[in-house]
Amino acid sequence: MSSSKEQRFLKSAMDEYGAKTSTEQVVQWLAWRNREVVVRVSPTRLSQMKDWALEESSGRIRHSSGKFFSIDGIRVDTNWGTRPAWAQPIINQPEIGFLGCITHEFNGVLHFLIQAKVEPGNVNCVQLSPTLQATKSNYTRVHHGKSPKFLEWFTDRSRSRVLLDQLQSEQGARFLHKRNRNIIIEVDAEIPDDLDFVWLTLGQIKRLMTFDNAVNMDLRTVVSGIPFGQEGLGRNPASFAEAMHASATETQNHFLPIDDIISWFTDQKTKFDLQITPCDLWAIEDWELSDECLRHKGDQFFRVIWVDVEISNREVTFWQQPLVEPVREGIIAFVVKRIQGVPHFLVQAKLECGNFDILEFAPTVQCITGSYANSLKVLPYLEYVLTAQADQIRYDTRQSEEGGRFYHEQNRNLVIEADEDFPVACPENYQWMTLNQLLMFARFNNYLNIQARSLLSTLRFV
Amino acid sequence: MSSSKEQRFLKSAMDEYGAKTSTEQVVQWLAWRNREVVVRVSPTRLSQMKDWALEESSGRIRHSSGKFFSIDGIRVDTNWGTRPAWAQPIINQPEIGFLGCITHEFNGVLHFLIQAKVEPGNVNCVQLSPTLQATKSNYTRVHHGKSPKFLEWFTDRSRSRVLLDQLQSEQGARFLHKRNRNIIIEVDAEIPDDLDFVWLTLGQIKRLMTFDNAVNMDLRTVVSGIPFGQEGLGRNPASFAEAMHASATETQNHFLPIDDIISWFTDQKTKFDLQITPCDLWAIEDWELSDECLRHKGDQFFRVIWVDVEISNREVTFWQQPLVEPVREGIIAFVVKRIQGVPHFLVQAKLECGNFDILEFAPTVQCITGSYANSLKVLPYLEYVLTAQADQIRYDTRQSEEGGRFYHEQNRNLVIEADEDFPVACPENYQWMTLNQLLMFARFNNYLNIQARSLLSTLRFV
Repeated sequence: MSSSKEQRFLKSAMDEYGAKTSTEQVVQWLAWRNREVVVRVSPTRLSQMKDWALEESSGRIRHSSGKFFSIDGIRVDTNWGTRPAWAQPIINQPEIGFLGCITHEFNGVLHFLIQAKVEPGNVNCVQLSPTLQATKSNYTRVHHGKSPKFLEWFTDRSRSRVLLDQLQSEQGARFLHKRNRNIIIEVDAEIPDDLDFVWLTLGQIKRLMTFDNAVNMDLRTVVSGIPFGQEGLGRNPASFAEAMHASATETQNHFLPIDDIISWFTDQKTKFDLQITPCDLWAIEDWELSDECLRHKGDQFFRVIWVDVEISNREVTFWQQPLVEPVREGIIAFVVKRIQGVPHFLVQAKLECGNFDILEFAPTVQCITGSYANSLKVLPYLEYVLTAQADQIRYDTRQSEEGGRFYHEQNRNLVIEADEDFPVACPENYQWMTLNQLLMFARFNNYLNIQARSLLSTLRFV
Repeated sequence: MSSSKEQRFLKSAMDEYGAKTSTEQVVQWLAWRNREVVVRVSPTRLSQMKDWALEESSGRIRHSSGKFFSIDGIRVDTNWGTRPAWAQPIINQPEIGFLGCITHEFNGVLHFLIQAKVEPGNVNCVQLSPTLQATKSNYTRVHHGKSPKFLEWFTDRSRSRVLLDQLQSEQGARFLHKRNRNIIIEVDAEIPDDLDFVWLTLGQIKRLMTFDNAVNMDLRTVVSGIPFGQEGLGRNPASFAEAMHASATETQNHFLPIDDIISWFTDQKTKFDLQITPCDLWAIEDWELSDECLRHKGDQFFRVIWVDVEISNREVTFWQQPLVEPVREGIIAFVVKRIQGVPHFLVQAKLECGNFDILEFAPTVQCITGSYANSLKVLPYLEYVLTAQADQIRYDTRQSEEGGRFYHEQNRNLVIEADEDFPVACPENYQWMTLNQLLMFARFNNYLNIQARSLLSTLRFV
């Protein structure tokens, strides 16, 4: 039964096979949606924000309702990495939100109901996003607005079957302990057409991820955890897409059994401490809070800015909010190498201050918050990734972070296939895993970080 | 390879099969160890404690070194259960300790190196415990004492093979986010005999759990996560021990597939919030802090007492520490029912304030901190468990909590086999799972709580 679910996902992942609408048409439709909407995001002052303010008693910037999110200060103490202690601002949004896709079978192939969604921080206006993207504030209607479209399909469980339902983490360097519920449901009923929505196969979603910034972070994370079963292609596949199929479905030929990976990760978690203490935003050394923004004095990492947002579509809406703006573009990359004939991913056990459980599995290289030009000689594998030959680069696009919180943040996403000489031996905080093993960990809470999931979501099969 | 490891565990679990020492001799040896030692635990005053004091600045009781543990105050806000907010004292010990067993093959059967360990809070003096039981303060030697015996076998990984290595949680109502590393290693080298240690098969450890308070909590949790593979006995086994074997190894016939259990648990975690805020110990309403103890004004839950400990064995040692003393005995019970011919456990998704991740899998009935006589009509399944017929009771003993933190705390441990009429339908925070599924979850972090693991550890096979 569960293998048939996985086979249906695999079938849907086969590029345009059985697609209701051609990918060409979808690209045109997305361009049209982008022309239709006008998004004006302009800087404002903290003192000009109607509902947001610095709260003296708690030392944080929060909404007058106490809902949505707040910008907090934290002190971090850790024995991981080279920096034992620092303080920084962080987004605090302790609720678990919904990132949900409705699916339905057309032409015998599972299609995903995808929304063309506007977010203030998007570099373009509109990106492809899950059917439902709702914070708890949204779906409990703190904003007194309309209930999000299609919400009832997710809350009334008698109307659908669950295909996937996982708690997954958000960016640990930017969010404190934030998680979302990533859920895919299947609906038998016909859903009426809607101007803002389109039905896509998983293969089409993956194809659209080869474009810069077309598929938003939320959709990438929802589809990242989809398992593809155990009926593989066997060893020594020819093309990279076949090799990915093999890595996703292979259960025997791996570098380490999963219990040994758990043991390695237990050892890593035992070694490292992460202690978080709240502190007042204005008390963070190295950071400056002014009416214009909250910034690092050395212009590192990110700034928190206050903005007026005006979106004109069929109707006009206006609001204000803080947004996090990165100081520079980052890079995330997986190095993949065939071991025992099956592609393995070089996974890093990485500590980020907002992590729910000390460490998570991160890509081989993750360099989001700092300048990676300065890290070239220091950061393992960064130089290898940046100097990879063209014929080793299996994936290279720019992908956006979530536009509801981050302003014009995009990072370079790379998948590099390592040559035969690439050493299997690696530093103790790295480990080789098949895609099948990574997808096993994805089913349980807080193993794969959002950057690792973002890269995995882009992998295409034959 | 991994199935052979599991088969070896299964073989070792078969009662006295191949045992180096008879269980009878072990019981005598344990009685002798108990006679040999004199433990004096006497109440003292907080003001008489040399290294422990109430710290004004943090509002907690801590050791002058800042290590070991502290007694903190917390405020709890949650929408789970009937009580939306309260404050209470809690043990704060953020380090990950070692609970480790060394194993070695004798007569072709895996044996565990078990320690007869004295703890001040034990109702008897000596209980069977893992080879190594060490807090981070122990193994980094904050107490300036000797390094714990056999520690080096666990820290130098080249000397052993890892058979199991998991992070597992402690009591969520008593500890804030506490976890230990539960690890089993296999050593080929001969280990010299030691007066305080004995080699036991897993079957013997399980047999000794049919005695009251013979096997300590730490040993019960280490062996609770041991997987037994997938080569089962098939359906409709005759005896309960055979049925447990079937439930531990069955991978097809279950009430719900594991992904559906994950979805149910995701849904439960999404529904419930748990917010913990530190508060000063003296500011907890309903609790009274005096020089004698920290107690609930209505004499509910537990007291924190300050004690002088003197242990006379081959040498005399003396120290002082706080201990947590329960107000009354508790009860934990699993109801087991055959569904599709395979025994399933009725598991509760339970919130406890110190939980690392909101909810954990708990036994069908868990009533540790309150008076369960008063809960008879309120708490689901409690009345069923307490009125079970003799021929339904598969396990019924008193087992101790960890004597290093808890004073004379023992709880009644029950496993009840439900009759055919027992309804499969259950409240939405309960779910039926096979032992095989529970052991799958045990491999990942923070799914099974310590009470559930304690009960699972007692299950015996044929």
